Amino acid sequence: MKRLLRKGIENLTPYPPGKPIEELERETGIVDSIKLASNENPLGPSPKAIMAIKENLNNIHRYPDGSCYNLRQKLAQKFGLPMSKIIVGNGADELIGLVVYTFLSPGEEVVLPWPTFLLYEKVVEGFGGKRVTVPLSNFSIDLPAILKAVSSATKIIFINNPNNPTGKALKKEELVHFLHSLPSDVIVVLDEAYIEFATDPKVASVVELLESYPLLVALRTFSKAYGLAGLRIGYGFASEMIIDGMNLVRQPFNANYLAQVGALAALDDEEFVNKTRTIIRDGLEFLYSQLDRIGLEYMTTQTNFLLIKTTLGAEETYRRMLREGVIVRSMESFGLKDYIRINVGLPEENKRFMKTLEKILS
Amino acid sequence: MKRLLRKGIENLTPYPPGKPIEELERETGIVDSIKLASNENPLGPSPKAIMAIKENLNNIHRYPDGSCYNLRQKLAQKFGLPMSKIIVGNGADELIGLVVYTFLSPGEEVVLPWPTFLLYEKVVEGFGGKRVTVPLSNFSIDLPAILKAVSSATKIIFINNPNNPTGKALKKEELVHFLHSLPSDVIVVLDEAYIEFATDPKVASVVELLESYPLLVALRTFSKAYGLAGLRIGYGFASEMIIDGMNLVRQPFNANYLAQVGALAALDDEEFVNKTRTIIRDGLEFLYSQLDRIGLEYMTTQTNFLLIKTTLGAEETYRRMLREGVIVRSMESFGLKDYIRINVGLPEENKRFMKTLEKILS
Repeated sequence: MKRLLRKGIENLTPYPPGKPIEELERETGIVDSIKLASNENPLGPSPKAIMAIKENLNNIHRYPDGSCYNLRQKLAQKFGLPMSKIIVGNGADELIGLVVYTFLSPGEEVVLPWPTFLLYEKVVEGFGGKRVTVPLSNFSIDLPAILKAVSSATKIIFINNPNNPTGKALKKEELVHFLHSLPSDVIVVLDEAYIEFATDPKVASVVELLESYPLLVALRTFSKAYGLAGLRIGYGFASEMIIDGMNLVRQPFNANYLAQVGALAALDDEEFVNKTRTIIRDGLEFLYSQLDRIGLEYMTTQTNFLLIKTTLGAEETYRRMLREGVIVRSMESFGLKDYIRINVGLPEENKRFMKTLEKILS
Repeated sequence: MKRLLRKGIENLTPYPPGKPIEELERETGIVDSIKLASNENPLGPSPKAIMAIKENLNNIHRYPDGSCYNLRQKLAQKFGLPMSKIIVGNGADELIGLVVYTFLSPGEEVVLPWPTFLLYEKVVEGFGGKRVTVPLSNFSIDLPAILKAVSSATKIIFINNPNNPTGKALKKEELVHFLHSLPSDVIVVLDEAYIEFATDPKVASVVELLESYPLLVALRTFSKAYGLAGLRIGYGFASEMIIDGMNLVRQPFNANYLAQVGALAALDDEEFVNKTRTIIRDGLEFLYSQLDRIGLEYMTTQTNFLLIKTTLGAEETYRRMLREGVIVRSMESFGLKDYIRINVGLPEENKRFMKTLEKILS
């Protein structure tokens, strides 16, 4: 196969194929498992989104609106931006790829923190681009070190704020200083997938900075706070220069119809987003206090998930929890071999998680 | 912006933004318009797909199964292939792009008929690849001319069978001969989006030829015969070598959850596919006879759409029909400036189309 592949991607390693929960349950004989591995919304999907989808099911034989007119119009109103500065994707995932496909030329570099959301790396490698990796400092993205890693070859920087998997967030002030210090020809992708969960008032979206930084791209998603991960719908804000460029390469019908319908309705579902924030905040308080009680280290978080250090190691903890029907994420692939990551679940799920963790550790 | 774009795509032209029907209706003041412009299914979506989606709406906060396990398993059973030879995409559109992103290196060429489905060209240009265009012969794909256009630089050939927008199909025997005559290092993408509509018994899918041609990729879609264009779901068959390569570059969660659920159910909806075939066949008979009656040229078709030559020219016909609330497709962007394309509609839509066409031409 290598001979056949595009030059520059011959050494890619396959993505693990993965199996649906039902398949795992069938194989392991476990029923009633709970999944805390993918930072999904414990409350389920936005009810307004579900209602809107139900009402529009009879139209799914039509191609979606390729321009996402209605959704972009609503986002424009909500964020006080012109529609021309908004793009919608098949999840924010697609937009991450699109930035690379649209702007990265051979020989140019992408600067990334590590560990961070795995897709940045995957997309750059899949494109045959060069990565420059900057380790976190004390589990936080190290902006001064990233600045030092920037060279004349740098084209794109990815920053996940708050950062997955550590849950740490940069303050807006730090980001302003960082953007101000960068060369003017570097594209900065600020992935704000978890920004709705941030409780530190100094952590905030960079949307309002778009005017001052023409090469800033802010990415957002409906997968987390709105509970629509299955629909695949995310969006990006940037200057017209960036958005027009991405639209040149974007697939004409990238965002599916039910995702557009659901996302549009979800934007009106503030009640749901508020309930989500409350259940995450309360769940974190419970988990912090329980982890303190049993003396396990963890990271306080600005998101709906948290890192926990386990004395059994990441993989062994993952496997033993799985056998008990509690699906967590081993952080070994993120280079954190003593950590697991869980998202906050429903109160009963958080209790079951703690009970199971205590059981396997004792 | 050009300075910023990836090298090789600086001269791309923007894709027209497009507006939803509701927006067009608002602007033109027309209500009750009918759309025959996108080769969609006149019967709507598969009812079994709608039912399955309704039953699974409460799970849309979960990420989709990135491996599309259940859908690939069902496709494997239906087509008698191993799951390892099947890939699922965000519409067949995504898979068209993925073949190019995965296999086309700088300097290599893609051979395409013309006119054909516009996305092949768009994807190759968006990637900065070189196109070699081979004109149709008498509205059919000219396989001998394509063979002549193949050089040592050729990496990929796109063949749309039946061909959009002409509706003509190649016979299986011709394709076997063609595949047999090609150098063994050329990837052939056979896009069979409309194959379910072919009535000529000599026109058939190439799925069973996969064993003999390791670089053959057959693409299929749920957008047409199953009426699921809005969901964005298509699939491809190829050797493990090709599929494994594409999976290296594919986004982990490319196919959304409701699309997977809907497609899985639609595969069991033979009743719907048969009803669709009948309404298309009957509609074509009606349209042929009416067009004969008023003396307009048209192309007989192996699909759910047909080309009609109009004495007013493509653009003018499109505009006048639009004013009457009948949305057709001007073929000017396909280089056919005297032609419009319509898909077969419901019987009352076909009647309204004919009545309106007669009115604007008289």
